[in-house]
Amino acid sequence: MTAASSLDELSRLARALADAAAQVTLPRFRTADLTTDDKGAAGLFDPVTAADREAEAAIRSILQRERPEDAILGEEHGTTTGRSGLTWVIDPIDGTRAFISGLPVWGTLIALDDGTRGVIGIVDQPFTGERFVGLNTPGASHAVLEHRGAVRAITTRRGRALADSTVFTTAPELFTETERRGFDAVRGAAQLTRYGTDCYAYALLAMGHVDLVIEAGLKAYDIAAPKALIEAAGGIVTGWRGEDCRWGGRVLAAAHPALHAEALELLSGIAPA
Amino acid sequence: MTAASSLDELSRLARALADAAAQVTLPRFRTADLTTDDKGAAGLFDPVTAADREAEAAIRSILQRERPEDAILGEEHGTTTGRSGLTWVIDPIDGTRAFISGLPVWGTLIALDDGTRGVIGIVDQPFTGERFVGLNTPGASHAVLEHRGAVRAITTRRGRALADSTVFTTAPELFTETERRGFDAVRGAAQLTRYGTDCYAYALLAMGHVDLVIEAGLKAYDIAAPKALIEAAGGIVTGWRGEDCRWGGRVLAAAHPALHAEALELLSGIAPA
Repeated sequence: MTAASSLDELSRLARALADAAAQVTLPRFRTADLTTDDKGAAGLFDPVTAADREAEAAIRSILQRERPEDAILGEEHGTTTGRSGLTWVIDPIDGTRAFISGLPVWGTLIALDDGTRGVIGIVDQPFTGERFVGLNTPGASHAVLEHRGAVRAITTRRGRALADSTVFTTAPELFTETERRGFDAVRGAAQLTRYGTDCYAYALLAMGHVDLVIEAGLKAYDIAAPKALIEAAGGIVTGWRGEDCRWGGRVLAAAHPALHAEALELLSGIAPA
Repeated sequence: MTAASSLDELSRLARALADAAAQVTLPRFRTADLTTDDKGAAGLFDPVTAADREAEAAIRSILQRERPEDAILGEEHGTTTGRSGLTWVIDPIDGTRAFISGLPVWGTLIALDDGTRGVIGIVDQPFTGERFVGLNTPGASHAVLEHRGAVRAITTRRGRALADSTVFTTAPELFTETERRGFDAVRGAAQLTRYGTDCYAYALLAMGHVDLVIEAGLKAYDIAAPKALIEAAGGIVTGWRGEDCRWGGRVLAAAHPALHAEALELLSGIAPA
């Protein structure tokens, strides 16, 4: 980052991107368009994909004006190269299935990667009015929840061992058979398992209510923002062998390092896909 | 109901019961008490059960003052007999696992049963500020969503066949092996399956975003309010063989009769437990 673009300034821009996306997504959430459209039978009109595409276009339009030298990696419109060394990694609607079901656990994901790590991670849920923001700077990482005018610091939950932990994943069917064995090993050792939350599970982990999130088959835009958020809140996010997962793959997010190590031992034993 | 206790009056009372529960539950949602308590290791202090018990006690206190001749069936404090022919069926926190995980898909459930059916059904989610209210009277059933000062009529979604439908359940592990075969048959024929929503799934069905909810092992206080709500919104809720499920068991909730018949055919073929 340059003197003219501090992390504070960039995080204000990131919030403006989330605002722009919400102006597209929220008016379409739970609308008759969505509830009456029958994609299976017709396939002519896909309002969810339209909401995705238009929200990402709104974000890109701002970035192209304000940050023309930054790269952009988005779910709907691919990659725009840059030369600043900074990459915006965005998913306008993470959890499209939740979105079309009326369930407010989808979110807009916005991350800024500096070439070595995510320095900004935002998970924004416009219906509940919750915006989770994590900023990573050496010695000064922190995360906040902004909710209907109130702002409070959030941190991951410390001290729970695997046997006392709560683990989330979106759906068991999303794992391969091999991955499922790894997940089941962790699930069997944990206290509580919950399903169906998409990016909202990572936000719950960042604010200290959930201890583990385990998923597979993720893309960069699915995990960049949650990873940066959780790291800013004190947690740890890697692949199932402890590797960097900024660009996707199998993900293990944990509230603290000892718990991460316990889960990693169970997951890392599975055979390669 | 007597002249002195019209359905309108009773529904105002039912809303007051939900308000009283929210005053207990919402201040405890996402609190440090909950997030730091380690039930698995100590078992001495259980703030979630305390929230459950105190919310139900608050509801019962109002009912005993206002409706001393009505019966009460609640999750935490059992059955209070009555002689009016009316029974209040209440669950102060449906979805305790969601509650302790910080996930706002739990709810307070309040139903009034007249001896033949549920005439009032409320699903209340204090964090999102959504209150779903269904009233069943011959020829005048209707349901509304009250959300942050706005009130709108809600109805179930019509016209989707099973192949185009969205089906919800809380967790696949909650089924017996036999029940799982029935659920999987429906899931395999549907367009989209989602997990993890507790009572909120029934509310999504009542407002037209979800087509089927399938569960097993329910108690009366789990299903009384969702069933009355969905019927008021135009849906149909029975057991897996089409029987009355007001007092619990296996539940099939559907947005419209033709879809109910399609799912029932797949579920009713399973062997008795």
